[in-house]
Amino acid sequence: MGANMTRNVDLNADMGEGFGPWTMGDDAALLDIVTSANIACGFHAGDPDVMARTMALAVKNGVGIGAHPGFADLKGFGRRQLPLPHDEIANAVAYQLGAAQAMARRAGGSVKHLKLHGALSNMASVDADLARACYQAALAVDPDITIMVLAATAMETVVRELDCAWAGEIFADRAYNDDATLVDRRKPGAVLHDATVAAPRILKMLEAGAIIAESGKHIPCRIDTICLHGDTPQAVEMARGIKAHLQAAGVTLQTF
Amino acid sequence: MGANMTRNVDLNADMGEGFGPWTMGDDAALLDIVTSANIACGFHAGDPDVMARTMALAVKNGVGIGAHPGFADLKGFGRRQLPLPHDEIANAVAYQLGAAQAMARRAGGSVKHLKLHGALSNMASVDADLARACYQAALAVDPDITIMVLAATAMETVVRELDCAWAGEIFADRAYNDDATLVDRRKPGAVLHDATVAAPRILKMLEAGAIIAESGKHIPCRIDTICLHGDTPQAVEMARGIKAHLQAAGVTLQTF
Amino acid sequence: MGANMTRNVDLNADMGEGFGPWTMGDDAALLDIVTSANIACGFHAGDPDVMARTMALAVKNGVGIGAHPGFADLKGFGRRQLPLPHDEIANAVAYQLGAAQAMARRAGGSVKHLKLHGALSNMASVDADLARACYQAALAVDPDITIMVLAATAMETVVRELDCAWAGEIFADRAYNDDATLVDRRKPGAVLHDATVAAPRILKMLEAGAIIAESGKHIPCRIDTICLHGDTPQAVEMARGIKAHLQAAGVTLQTF
Amino acid sequence: MGANMTRNVDLNADMGEGFGPWTMGDDAALLDIVTSANIACGFHAGDPDVMARTMALAVKNGVGIGAHPGFADLKGFGRRQLPLPHDEIANAVAYQLGAAQAMARRAGGSVKHLKLHGALSNMASVDADLARACYQAALAVDPDITIMVLAATAMETVVRELDCAWAGEIFADRAYNDDATLVDRRKPGAVLHDATVAAPRILKMLEAGAIIAESGKHIPCRIDTICLHGDTPQAVEMARGIKAHLQAAGVTLQTF
Repeated sequence: MGANMTRNVDLNADMGEGFGPWTMGDDAALLDIVTSANIACGFHAGDPDVMARTMALAVKNGVGIGAHPGFADLKGFGRRQLPLPHDEIANAVAYQLGAAQAMARRAGGSVKHLKLHGALSNMASVDADLARACYQAALAVDPDITIMVLAATAMETVVRELDCAWAGEIFADRAYNDDATLVDRRKPGAVLHDATVAAPRILKMLEAGAIIAESGKHIPCRIDTICLHGDTPQAVEMARGIKAHLQAAGVTLQTF
Repeated sequence: MGANMTRNVDLNADMGEGFGPWTMGDDAALLDIVTSANIACGFHAGDPDVMARTMALAVKNGVGIGAHPGFADLKGFGRRQLPLPHDEIANAVAYQLGAAQAMARRAGGSVKHLKLHGALSNMASVDADLARACYQAALAVDPDITIMVLAATAMETVVRELDCAWAGEIFADRAYNDDATLVDRRKPGAVLHDATVAAPRILKMLEAGAIIAESGKHIPCRIDTICLHGDTPQAVEMARGIKAHLQAAGVTLQTF
Repeated sequence: MGANMTRNVDLNADMGEGFGPWTMGDDAALLDIVTSANIACGFHAGDPDVMARTMALAVKNGVGIGAHPGFADLKGFGRRQLPLPHDEIANAVAYQLGAAQAMARRAGGSVKHLKLHGALSNMASVDADLARACYQAALAVDPDITIMVLAATAMETVVRELDCAWAGEIFADRAYNDDATLVDRRKPGAVLHDATVAAPRILKMLEAGAIIAESGKHIPCRIDTICLHGDTPQAVEMARGIKAHLQAAGVTLQTF
Repeated sequence: MGANMTRNVDLNADMGEGFGPWTMGDDAALLDIVTSANIACGFHAGDPDVMARTMALAVKNGVGIGAHPGFADLKGFGRRQLPLPHDEIANAVAYQLGAAQAMARRAGGSVKHLKLHGALSNMASVDADLARACYQAALAVDPDITIMVLAATAMETVVRELDCAWAGEIFADRAYNDDATLVDRRKPGAVLHDATVAAPRILKMLEAGAIIAESGKHIPCRIDTICLHGDTPQAVEMARGIKAHLQAAGVTLQTF
């Protein structure tokens, strides 16, 4: 194990992504695995009741609560890049963060971090102005909030510039290009489905303090949190496998 | 002027009731008149951008900001009584209050009070359990918030029981029944349209420290705020007339 | 087997109840079982894409297409009784029917029947004026449409009075009270989960030409279609079991 | 007056653009002026009740009814270019057309034409594949419908190729570039506000059988209908002025 190794890391996952009569993913299982939960805020998924239930479970499990704002696009699940003015997007981020804070408080907890969802995250990862607009809006609502950013992207540039609390994130199940962007989902190998492949890979990144691209290239970055998925039984199984592997290697899993 | 006279009173009005491309009422005019603004929170009217603009104007005018949550019923403008479990309604109130707090904070202000909107208000004014569920949700989000209640209704009973900060409200333009409920809108005289009638009537209520019903009956109550409307040019004119009349009589207009 | 026995009967099920990223039930399995599909129209569930896919599958399987309009209440899945004027409800029914016709036509089929969904159905089954408003709206859009009604309710009274094409429906999995209403879901035995109980019971009703209440009371009625459910794997299994039992007894399963 | 002059022309305007409690424009005034109404279908504006009222007024005034589908974006009023797959857009067009047909039928009329709204129109005017997807969807629902296209754009190319009924449209109040696109709204002179300027200009285009660009360039095209606006009192006044001018010049105003 290298001297620079990250010995503490957070595991995060998106949850609270049901709406009304519809459910998505296995939140209860995920809450047993992760240390931070990114909870949908009602715009791309989630509603006040889903949020209340998810927040209560997170508090019960001692899992850190994050606001996970997205575009107001229920039908598209926040995955469509909407061409909105930055100020409108910033308003939507502030609104959703405030709603999440209220629901967290009512559940006996509090919102610790903010992570942008879906297309909004994709857009902000390559558009520093948009990232800045979103993060400034969030910091105006809560100056102490931790901003979760995709490591080594425009998001990271912005949080360093804003000098706020932040956490650098890498994906457990996605291959990286040499510029730290994700390999296109449609390419073979872009998405990992096997914990026995994904877990050692992540451990190597922690040891290296770097994203390791598909090519083998190392992109040094701060790794504070690892994103897991739980939308299928296989995904939950893989999340469990990764966690076990990291623990066995002596990594402490805890929220930032 | 009687010795018991209320010498300080707040004037409040609903605003921020546009949505997307649609506007409603003359908020700019109202903000010159009132001392408190009840701002829609995106469920029955309002959206994050409308809220941001309205909050900014309220801050600029030194007008107290209130969250004005309603049913998630844009098409019905929150005026339809929805048969929802109290806990769902309470979640929706907390969510909207949190969103309003965030928007207020971003505008450089803060939410001082909460007032229920439309059908939700009508229902809570005769259902203490519902009022309690809503107010407890709001107080869990902000224990110091002032709850605005329809004077002498179940709402008042509940805030006295909860021992929280509250403000008793009467309507400038509505006739009252002997049980402190409002005369049905469809009856002649139920809605006042003339400041020369409404203003002296309100002044008498302030002097008496009581709602004065259509019959002449006095219903003693705490009057902290008077509700004005601004949805038509006539309504704005009337609001101005009432304000001038109260000021001429030596009443100080200020937020609670 | 009695001489009056219904030898032909339709099997219907609700489907197309996903929305955006969310799915509900196993439509593909149901379309192999039923002869008529009640397809959500976008107000309580369904969206144009879900409708297009479901319509295409129905056409491919030779299953009769029905419009299944409900309240505009996605979050409540159309299960909350909304206090709307009859004319507004009638407008919503016409709108949804028209949308369904267009989607069916584009899929190479056509809408054969209309069945009200959820709370709207519950309300119309005991309110002849509401049922009439809905059915007249549908018939104004398509005078030849078959209206599916809960047998022996106010709905049936209305379609007889309107002298339109109609189909009387009973439930495969619900116990009946003596007045032909459904036993409250919360009571034991209200919902049947076992095809070996439900199938013979339904066959007896077909033989008797009557709803057989829990008490054993016979309520004579026209039985044209049997409602099955498919929201769980168990429900799909039960639907299959009922179908097999009816076929084994010589009942022909075909759309009205 | 030239020999090639268009002696018959249709005047069209968008209407039915309210939603729930909100209104937009003066539909009653417009219906006295135009010969065709483009009625919003509930996705970017309009709801079943607004549609019912607008359709009834159109029928009463003998004005041709058109479906005016847009993106499902109430907040953005269908003016934001949403990056959706063509098939999803086509489904949304079919859905809205069907809904409009039903509402028209219930009002005693029928849908004669289809015109795309807002951002969807802008996108389809420069993307023949998108235009084709939308128009094929509409024609699958009603093979006899008249498609209203922006004259001399990709839309026109597509309807000629589809060999369907169509109507070429020019704007009464917008300046044109040399390639038949509209001059950017933000440029001076892009939007005309004065009937004494706009009316002779339109008459010249009718006489020339061509769009006359700002530069004076003539772009020959079929002109079947002129788009008027009615969103402000000034716009209504201008629409009236243009109509009077055309009638005085001997142009017959009638629907295609």
